Amino acid sequence: MKILILNGPNLNLLGIREPEIYGSDSFEQYFETLCQKYKDVDIEYYQSNVEGEIINKLHQVGFEYDGILLNAGGYTHTSVAIRDAISAIKTPVLEIHISNIAARESFRHTSLLSQVCVGSISGLGLKGYKLGLDYFIEN
Amino acid sequence: MKILILNGPNLNLLGIREPEIYGSDSFEQYFETLCQKYKDVDIEYYQSNVEGEIINKLHQVGFEYDGILLNAGGYTHTSVAIRDAISAIKTPVLEIHISNIAARESFRHTSLLSQVCVGSISGLGLKGYKLGLDYFIEN
Amino acid sequence: MKILILNGPNLNLLGIREPEIYGSDSFEQYFETLCQKYKDVDIEYYQSNVEGEIINKLHQVGFEYDGILLNAGGYTHTSVAIRDAISAIKTPVLEIHISNIAARESFRHTSLLSQVCVGSISGLGLKGYKLGLDYFIEN
Amino acid sequence: MKILILNGPNLNLLGIREPEIYGSDSFEQYFETLCQKYKDVDIEYYQSNVEGEIINKLHQVGFEYDGILLNAGGYTHTSVAIRDAISAIKTPVLEIHISNIAARESFRHTSLLSQVCVGSISGLGLKGYKLGLDYFIEN
Amino acid sequence: MKILILNGPNLNLLGIREPEIYGSDSFEQYFETLCQKYKDVDIEYYQSNVEGEIINKLHQVGFEYDGILLNAGGYTHTSVAIRDAISAIKTPVLEIHISNIAARESFRHTSLLSQVCVGSISGLGLKGYKLGLDYFIEN
Amino acid sequence: MKILILNGPNLNLLGIREPEIYGSDSFEQYFETLCQKYKDVDIEYYQSNVEGEIINKLHQVGFEYDGILLNAGGYTHTSVAIRDAISAIKTPVLEIHISNIAARESFRHTSLLSQVCVGSISGLGLKGYKLGLDYFIEN
Amino acid sequence: MKILILNGPNLNLLGIREPEIYGSDSFEQYFETLCQKYKDVDIEYYQSNVEGEIINKLHQVGFEYDGILLNAGGYTHTSVAIRDAISAIKTPVLEIHISNIAARESFRHTSLLSQVCVGSISGLGLKGYKLGLDYFIEN
Amino acid sequence: MKILILNGPNLNLLGIREPEIYGSDSFEQYFETLCQKYKDVDIEYYQSNVEGEIINKLHQVGFEYDGILLNAGGYTHTSVAIRDAISAIKTPVLEIHISNIAARESFRHTSLLSQVCVGSISGLGLKGYKLGLDYFIEN
Amino acid sequence: MKILILNGPNLNLLGIREPEIYGSDSFEQYFETLCQKYKDVDIEYYQSNVEGEIINKLHQVGFEYDGILLNAGGYTHTSVAIRDAISAIKTPVLEIHISNIAARESFRHTSLLSQVCVGSISGLGLKGYKLGLDYFIEN
Amino acid sequence: MKILILNGPNLNLLGIREPEIYGSDSFEQYFETLCQKYKDVDIEYYQSNVEGEIINKLHQVGFEYDGILLNAGGYTHTSVAIRDAISAIKTPVLEIHISNIAARESFRHTSLLSQVCVGSISGLGLKGYKLGLDYFIEN
Amino acid sequence: MKILILNGPNLNLLGIREPEIYGSDSFEQYFETLCQKYKDVDIEYYQSNVEGEIINKLHQVGFEYDGILLNAGGYTHTSVAIRDAISAIKTPVLEIHISNIAARESFRHTSLLSQVCVGSISGLGLKGYKLGLDYFIEN
Amino acid sequence: MKILILNGPNLNLLGIREPEIYGSDSFEQYFETLCQKYKDVDIEYYQSNVEGEIINKLHQVGFEYDGILLNAGGYTHTSVAIRDAISAIKTPVLEIHISNIAARESFRHTSLLSQVCVGSISGLGLKGYKLGLDYFIEN
Repeated sequence: MKILILNGPNLNLLGIREPEIYGSDSFEQYFETLCQKYKDVDIEYYQSNVEGEIINKLHQVGFEYDGILLNAGGYTHTSVAIRDAISAIKTPVLEIHISNIAARESFRHTSLLSQVCVGSISGLGLKGYKLGLDYFIEN
Repeated sequence: MKILILNGPNLNLLGIREPEIYGSDSFEQYFETLCQKYKDVDIEYYQSNVEGEIINKLHQVGFEYDGILLNAGGYTHTSVAIRDAISAIKTPVLEIHISNIAARESFRHTSLLSQVCVGSISGLGLKGYKLGLDYFIEN
Repeated sequence: MKILILNGPNLNLLGIREPEIYGSDSFEQYFETLCQKYKDVDIEYYQSNVEGEIINKLHQVGFEYDGILLNAGGYTHTSVAIRDAISAIKTPVLEIHISNIAARESFRHTSLLSQVCVGSISGLGLKGYKLGLDYFIEN
Repeated sequence: MKILILNGPNLNLLGIREPEIYGSDSFEQYFETLCQKYKDVDIEYYQSNVEGEIINKLHQVGFEYDGILLNAGGYTHTSVAIRDAISAIKTPVLEIHISNIAARESFRHTSLLSQVCVGSISGLGLKGYKLGLDYFIEN
Repeated sequence: MKILILNGPNLNLLGIREPEIYGSDSFEQYFETLCQKYKDVDIEYYQSNVEGEIINKLHQVGFEYDGILLNAGGYTHTSVAIRDAISAIKTPVLEIHISNIAARESFRHTSLLSQVCVGSISGLGLKGYKLGLDYFIEN
Repeated sequence: MKILILNGPNLNLLGIREPEIYGSDSFEQYFETLCQKYKDVDIEYYQSNVEGEIINKLHQVGFEYDGILLNAGGYTHTSVAIRDAISAIKTPVLEIHISNIAARESFRHTSLLSQVCVGSISGLGLKGYKLGLDYFIEN
Repeated sequence: MKILILNGPNLNLLGIREPEIYGSDSFEQYFETLCQKYKDVDIEYYQSNVEGEIINKLHQVGFEYDGILLNAGGYTHTSVAIRDAISAIKTPVLEIHISNIAARESFRHTSLLSQVCVGSISGLGLKGYKLGLDYFIEN
Repeated sequence: MKILILNGPNLNLLGIREPEIYGSDSFEQYFETLCQKYKDVDIEYYQSNVEGEIINKLHQVGFEYDGILLNAGGYTHTSVAIRDAISAIKTPVLEIHISNIAARESFRHTSLLSQVCVGSISGLGLKGYKLGLDYFIEN
Repeated sequence: MKILILNGPNLNLLGIREPEIYGSDSFEQYFETLCQKYKDVDIEYYQSNVEGEIINKLHQVGFEYDGILLNAGGYTHTSVAIRDAISAIKTPVLEIHISNIAARESFRHTSLLSQVCVGSISGLGLKGYKLGLDYFIEN
Repeated sequence: MKILILNGPNLNLLGIREPEIYGSDSFEQYFETLCQKYKDVDIEYYQSNVEGEIINKLHQVGFEYDGILLNAGGYTHTSVAIRDAISAIKTPVLEIHISNIAARESFRHTSLLSQVCVGSISGLGLKGYKLGLDYFIEN
Repeated sequence: MKILILNGPNLNLLGIREPEIYGSDSFEQYFETLCQKYKDVDIEYYQSNVEGEIINKLHQVGFEYDGILLNAGGYTHTSVAIRDAISAIKTPVLEIHISNIAARESFRHTSLLSQVCVGSISGLGLKGYKLGLDYFIEN
Repeated sequence: MKILILNGPNLNLLGIREPEIYGSDSFEQYFETLCQKYKDVDIEYYQSNVEGEIINKLHQVGFEYDGILLNAGGYTHTSVAIRDAISAIKTPVLEIHISNIAARESFRHTSLLSQVCVGSISGLGLKGYKLGLDYFIEN
């Protein structure tokens, strides 16, 4: 089983950026823990601040992997192009948000991606990634 | 640990109602499975089609229990009163939707409840309840 | 043939409430006349001011009866939950409004229920119920 | 008693046009049946694709006839001029739609005519015209 | 003189719920004080979390009492059905809000009830009920 | 000097239609009076209920006459085609409305034609036509 | 017969301000011409840049004069207070705009004053005032 | 204790202006009655039609008085500047409206001032001022 | 192969009307050139300013011809009736606009017809018709 | 070189009003510092709470001075009349805001004045005035 | 003659992605055919998923080439930056869409690019590129 | 003191692109002048057309430098991701626009970035960068 965790813009700053919203752990540390826990699953991690590189990655793994956990960060609310990439590929994509986007600024209330994802988990912190993994594994 | 699963209107018809959207298992069957799996957790199940009874239930358990999984069905999009009840109580509430509400009619894209819940899981079928339980248990 | 006439909030006041809009006959009197006229049809009448009880009634008869004439009153414009109940059942539902809702306040111009009903009759007074009965009987 | 059935644009194609929405009977055939059924009523039928000719017809009969059943087709949603004609005449106008316009594209959800008609019947197929006739006759 | 104080959803939690917004007195305590003060007036108190029961109560007293002080809580912003009940009855209704709803979330800025009430008092805490009583008594 | 008075839909009913809004004089009578008064001016009168015929008339006179007084009735608010015709011709067009359209239904508050006319006179009754004539003559 | 011409903000700059829109004559010069022409009419002219002074002037003459020609300039689109003053007085007010406000920026397309004036003349330059005077005199 | 009653535009016409909405008493008469009743309170009355003078008055008393009852009339719906003045001062301001502004034109439904006032009383006629005084005195 | 070129309102003025937008060739001249070029194709040309006649023409050829090039002019943005006619017929319709409608007034940015046409060509001048012909011929 | 600093409503309270937003210096003190620094420039300072007086001042200096720094306070968002005054004069106007208006209430996000000013500086505190002066001096 | 065909995000998946919308040919194959057909024209093909690289390409060829056929994919609806690049260069740009974007999700109905392109062709499949080439060649 | 000047898409074309809006100097030339003038300040210049590279640059310097002058070009109006990057870093960011964006197309009137910047300077040409530098240096 192969799963990609795909993080979008500014998530490389996790642990540094606005810790009152996003917590103080870096994603790399958290990713270590996940790998330890799910030794039988082939989990890959990729982060980019460039919209087009996120699309490239989706194309690259999207006809092969068993699942993608996507936290597209700010592109969630503005990118028709990432939405189209999700529609174009075969691998199911599950949308993850660390914070509860419904409780923040109104422009964060609409996700252009949700409609083409299998579902979404938001507001549950880094634990959302773990639950998403469980979804793909137990499915 | 005490957790309430609180289902709103029409979810009593699960397994009968629009199976292409909601699947063909009744919630009662699924609840059995959950109880089997989580023997150490005290899980309660309550369903009502009446908005005010959902509020009553929230009031009743909301200063005692450790978590509430709430699928408010159609009231999700229209009930300021349930929103106020969630704000008024102490127990954290996690919003669950069986279907991916973002991929359905536009009036289902807005949840009045999300802002006052800790987070939400949607589109992952009945498995969403299981993941929600995990969230409260592992937290 | 079994038909339910299902009236929502405030319709128990018919004949008392705003007679310039709704006329001065009570619905009970009118129901008597209908029963007289359609002796071969099993017509049931139910009224409730509680949204959830209307849903309960729809669930109860909605897999058995041949037709439902629904005047959801003020819930017409606000209830996603009743809409979901109509979608969930098998019996066809015909929407009735005594007054011409298009000629009243703008919030009455949109019905959340119309899209999931077979059709609607509005503005024709109590006679709308009679015509609705004819529709089910002659169909 | 004199009643006009007034059909607007594209209704001359009934039976040919999109039969999955409008059925496969031509209106002329249906009109025959109506005339057979209501021998004591003087029913006239007029159809035009031209907005202004619909207005002309309303002016011509609108101070004499006892009722008009109007299906203004696409002009329903765009014609202030037909609305003004309905206001200007004395004969009551009842709005008919064969399909359930509330369940189609959003620009069909608003009727400019409803506010000045006595009421409306929609979604009940050709039977809507028959029920409309009954309304005028039994009134 | 008979006055009903009618409180809607979540107001049973007063003193417990969000004390920074609503204060820490329960309504029952406050009601005691009012009764003490206005010994010559017959004041009744009723609270329900169920929209339809609020409607039932309005129907029950609305052709007899001299005034109703209504704090419909979250239903203020969503209930056409309560609005219709207020229109349907004879007793004048005065809208009360403990907090200044105009200074809270934008969905609280619109009241569906104001247009059919005689007036409204908001933001003046529990004292708003007392001033409302004065209005009816001195009128 | 040649001036066209061009009236749109339903203005042929003037004097008959809603006299409380439009007065009880027919336009033909009023036109007589105008001709009497302005003997040196060649005034032509044309009325049609058909949008396309109004366009045809604008094309026919619009490269020759000295002015057009246009009351497009209901087409004022819906006709891009008439607007385009006004833009296409050379003769200046002055918009006339008998009633004060700003004080009527909100869909009458916007004129698609105003932007391409030289100006407009509204709410001054039939006298608006006389003042419009004066504008062209004295200019 | 007593008529007030009441000009609002920036109209004191007429002849200086944006002559391509408003022309190069000052209003004072034009007012001279009007007085010459209508010797039998008592015409008064008042201009102020202060919203409240315009209201004061309306109050002062509005129970005595026979007509007011009001060009409220920029306050046309923003002043509920001037609108209320027009409603409060007895003298009929006719709205004048020198330029065709419908052909300018979109915020100029809505007049808060039109609904409470008898009518409006716009786009006809200074001649609009003369036609407005004629309206009051000939009425 | 010092209280200012501050009335905005057109309220000087009270008793003269639209008596069916505002009643037929002048405010001066009513103010007399209030002073008689509250002999221990230092009540001042100020009215202006000029937005800036209302701001000046708020500045002048707003760091000294114990309360301000403000009926800003038409400026209620348009004045960010008065709103800023209320925020800038220390004295609490209570918003008063004689008529039920929620039951009038839609542009009166939004108050720019409510968010920065302690609360509001509307629709209770002149009695609203009396109740507002009571609020400050009993607080 | 039979193709109809169907032009709507004001296109008869091509070459005369606003040449800076539409060029200075008449459509008749251009049509000559097209016929010369495509001798093997049976091209018909029809123009009308009347919405209903455009519908009539669509009905007449729409079950026989191989393609229709439709430039509906101003009706593009307002005619649900023409849209319905396109849906009702069998012949594919290709939408043509001479000017780039996206670069003009905002009410021209929305076409009611595009959704039911096979596609559209806009902004390419008269050459758009030639390219449209190529589309049908080469398809 | 002559420059006017023109401050609108409530800016006379600077140093007193909401110091967490506007700082605790009075504008007069700051103006002293500016005059000291720019001895060769003729800087004038004017403040008014009255919209019309701001317009008067713009008219008075606007055909003579070399630049105007305008902080119109709350009138920024509501005054078409001040906008028109800026358009009407010759002197370039630079818009200044002490606070970052984009980060405050949404009604402060739109400035009616920006479009007719040469540019704007906002959020830089009192230093914004100094930078604005530099702009005019160095230009 | 030099023409660039510039394809945006996800168009590299053509033939793989959603074949029911976009067909099953890859663009590379189609490009071969075009080059064969237009041997005298220097056609270049470039595709990128990165918004900024599309801008870079526009800058690189946009002062030299004779035409650009741009299918910006999902960036069509969101990229002000690409729009600015088109405005900034000299080469005319023609917008191409393979599918009929007007018949898909509503967020695809608005193109930010159309206003600054010479025109657009949409819904004609890959043939749209061929017609676009013809436009530049024959022009 | 270290300051970054960070320019977004199309600003590399400055001096070439639309000189009537942006002037005819290249930014490199202007940057030379600035460096000459501010010899004691360490000014860095970076430009990219790629949204993600702008984010990368903000991350790279945003925990070290003393200020960032950001002209995000077209991304100003569309990039939540850049907004998030500004929030995530420590260095204060000042928004610069060469042209007066409030006087251009309406989609340029809203900046997603302003709310998280310290302030903004717009419409003052290249001089805006110089004033921005002064702000950081003098602060």
